[in-house]
Amino acid sequence: MATEATTDDGSDAPDAYDALLDRARRWNTVGSAAGVLGWDQQVMMPEGGTPARSKQLSTLSSIRHDMLTDDETADLLAALEDADLTDEQAAAVREIRREHRRAAAVPVGLVEEISETGSEALQAWEQAKADDDFETFAPYLRKHVELKREYAEHIDPDRDPYEVLFEEYEPCLSIERAEAILTELREALVPMIDAIRESDRDLAVDTFDGAYPTDAQEALARDALEYLGYDFDRGRLDVSSHPFTSGNQFDCRVTTRFDESDPLGAIGSTIHEFGHAQYNLGLPKEHWATPLGEARDLSVHESQSRLWENHVGRSRAFWEQFLPMMTDRFPDAADATVEDAYEAANQVYEDNLIRVEADELTYHLHIVARFEIERDLIRGDLAVEDVPEVWNDKYEQYLGIRPETDAEGCLQDIHWSHGNFGYFPTYSLGSVMAAQLYDAADAAIDDLEGSIADGDFDPLRDWLATNVHAHGSRYETNELVERATGEAFSADAFLAYVDEKYGELYDL
Amino acid sequence: MATEATTDDGSDAPDAYDALLDRARRWNTVGSAAGVLGWDQQVMMPEGGTPARSKQLSTLSSIRHDMLTDDETADLLAALEDADLTDEQAAAVREIRREHRRAAAVPVGLVEEISETGSEALQAWEQAKADDDFETFAPYLRKHVELKREYAEHIDPDRDPYEVLFEEYEPCLSIERAEAILTELREALVPMIDAIRESDRDLAVDTFDGAYPTDAQEALARDALEYLGYDFDRGRLDVSSHPFTSGNQFDCRVTTRFDESDPLGAIGSTIHEFGHAQYNLGLPKEHWATPLGEARDLSVHESQSRLWENHVGRSRAFWEQFLPMMTDRFPDAADATVEDAYEAANQVYEDNLIRVEADELTYHLHIVARFEIERDLIRGDLAVEDVPEVWNDKYEQYLGIRPETDAEGCLQDIHWSHGNFGYFPTYSLGSVMAAQLYDAADAAIDDLEGSIADGDFDPLRDWLATNVHAHGSRYETNELVERATGEAFSADAFLAYVDEKYGELYDL
Repeated sequence: MATEATTDDGSDAPDAYDALLDRARRWNTVGSAAGVLGWDQQVMMPEGGTPARSKQLSTLSSIRHDMLTDDETADLLAALEDADLTDEQAAAVREIRREHRRAAAVPVGLVEEISETGSEALQAWEQAKADDDFETFAPYLRKHVELKREYAEHIDPDRDPYEVLFEEYEPCLSIERAEAILTELREALVPMIDAIRESDRDLAVDTFDGAYPTDAQEALARDALEYLGYDFDRGRLDVSSHPFTSGNQFDCRVTTRFDESDPLGAIGSTIHEFGHAQYNLGLPKEHWATPLGEARDLSVHESQSRLWENHVGRSRAFWEQFLPMMTDRFPDAADATVEDAYEAANQVYEDNLIRVEADELTYHLHIVARFEIERDLIRGDLAVEDVPEVWNDKYEQYLGIRPETDAEGCLQDIHWSHGNFGYFPTYSLGSVMAAQLYDAADAAIDDLEGSIADGDFDPLRDWLATNVHAHGSRYETNELVERATGEAFSADAFLAYVDEKYGELYDL
Repeated sequence: MATEATTDDGSDAPDAYDALLDRARRWNTVGSAAGVLGWDQQVMMPEGGTPARSKQLSTLSSIRHDMLTDDETADLLAALEDADLTDEQAAAVREIRREHRRAAAVPVGLVEEISETGSEALQAWEQAKADDDFETFAPYLRKHVELKREYAEHIDPDRDPYEVLFEEYEPCLSIERAEAILTELREALVPMIDAIRESDRDLAVDTFDGAYPTDAQEALARDALEYLGYDFDRGRLDVSSHPFTSGNQFDCRVTTRFDESDPLGAIGSTIHEFGHAQYNLGLPKEHWATPLGEARDLSVHESQSRLWENHVGRSRAFWEQFLPMMTDRFPDAADATVEDAYEAANQVYEDNLIRVEADELTYHLHIVARFEIERDLIRGDLAVEDVPEVWNDKYEQYLGIRPETDAEGCLQDIHWSHGNFGYFPTYSLGSVMAAQLYDAADAAIDDLEGSIADGDFDPLRDWLATNVHAHGSRYETNELVERATGEAFSADAFLAYVDEKYGELYDL
């Protein structure tokens, strides 16, 4: 596959490397342009703009795909196969090669079919959820499962298709490790939630009952971002129906949403998105649009959002300064104490059926149930028509509650309507990683809790920037975690954290 | 150049046509994606986003250029040279061929050099304007003149370079006609403005003196857009430092700006942008991203904005219903009569040096001065160092006032810092065309003035949609005007309009 100019001896490896990076910058720049269009679509675009926007996005996606998979890219990668590269260069080539191989392996027609099925499936899912009628969605789910099995087979016919799909989101975490961690979570959390259900302790769950006007909530969300150190010269806060983060090291924007009866929801989601944005804003500018300037995968990204949301935003220390900021915006809440706020922010919703409304503990059992179901679907061990019952059984078994409708059960999440199988585990893996990273930061920083209580987030921000953000995709996930924490990625820190925190809160 | 598959006999012309249109849709879709990024840059983007945005825009521009100029496009155009096409198809091919030829003629390196010079020149111009120091800008203006002469020579070495540059904005209006119209304007307006200066009539120029809060102005701008029939499901109103319109038939957004002491400024500029947006929103959806679904050139676009701004927004009929809407937002202005508002909206600023603050009459002399200067610069008949004096002489001669500084003189506009020569005339040509189109609409619509006075804009909107917007770029400019108005494009209607309007206002 090598071109004449870049033959056997690899003597001109640096030239091929530069040429490859130039190409990667080009296709990643197209990808980042599409990102801006995606942000606009969710935040600014009038409804009528959909037809043009769909075409713009599919055109950019196809241009990016063509560059990534064409002969010139293949030839450059071939020329660099045994080339003498620095560690940094080798890391960049490794990432480009992986993405190229995966994209080149799947026929464009199949990708388009999946994308089209996604549009139809999304509509069917919305209808099915509204009508509480799984049968409306079932044919589309079946189709997605078939197409994604086919997709996995193109990439590697010899491996477990769920593993291959999981690698779409976590190319460098093994499914075995993921599965082991999820199993550990299940085994530890099911009895812990049982114990909480039995506990006599009443937390101050009604601390923030009442109505909280949206404009004051928005002002408070801005306060929170300013307080944590979000750089508004490189970002924005807007409102969207699903909070998300979009952007890069030059311009990374967050969104949030407001529920008048739940001010903690907007605060938590704003801090969560702050964590995502902080990661992107901390990527090295000089490596923009190359693997060394792009974030590692979903679990690492989620570790950054969860670290800020849970380990900072749900800590007593955080509320010491933040509670007065909150009562400034909401004078009605002036009687709340730091302890009240801490308890309200950390209550466990034992009877909640909805993942996105879950607390820090029960959340993972929502994920475990989804993971086991989608894994079995893709492996062919579970039929689509059995999903509702299996779902309900698992909820009963893991969370002690049984959904009465599929709308509140297996139809609640959008992911499968997009054909995203293998995505859910990354949420829990991110939380687990957050705990491990936070412990390492705590060990490295002199009185981290004290600095948070003082509203000084510089030490934590700096530690994360140095140990996580600055590396981009240079290290694979396990190596990144090991370098940052000195230990292999595991659930130990998370389990110790929840044990201590909820043991104290619920007197377990 | 024809490929084997599309040879001499043109028998497969329809295939080549479909293939060409597919390609054009692709590059125009990339162009429209860049348009969204441009809107975001001016309206939403945090300042820090500039480096990434510049790369995104230059990458999309280069991808578009590559598709437009590559061999495949050239081969398809060659195959269609003598093909048997419908009128519609022939029109689409004509437009694509023209754009392809022009883009293919100029070396990419020169385009990049002009773009880079533009960035430096913009900075130098900003500095020069702030310091009132033409010498700071002069070297960049000289460089731009040289580069643009070179650019024109690549496109056609045998023709007047200013004519070639003018065609960048007006590919199908001859420079002779443009020049004749501008000369007519100068000859008619210079004495008219002299007469107005001598007039004893005092207009109610202080009708809207005072302070008008920005939020109420914004609410009124929304009122105005709703009132005129702007489709907010396919658009937005935002604020930017320079008002502009951006988008297509699915999503076309306008911006405006506010000056607390000048509520008429925001109203006029909002209505102006409404006219631009109405054009894009009226383009046929089924031809999106092809010439038949794209707007004709700048003069036609400007005719739509000026028609709404001047012939509607500055009419007595408009103010009958709009004045109460305005005084609702601004109770302090409640004493104003429709006649007061009409006079305030139509006063002639005889001593104004600034183009963007000019009225409907003096405006064109600002343009004529710029046109004559840039034409002579590009033709080599004027040296850059002589621009300030020539500028001031022309202002004295045409407008009876002489700038005391270059900041208020030849440094006031941004256009030349971008290297845009040939752009200015399109503003006046658009106003002239607006008058001709308005007359035709008035002849075709039963009591147009009455419907405007009743706040019923449907007849005018429909007439413009049918006679201008629906055609996209199917007809060249002259044919479009002739089909819509029954007459060749000329200044007659405009001159009759201002004669009658200002004759009455100033008792001439």
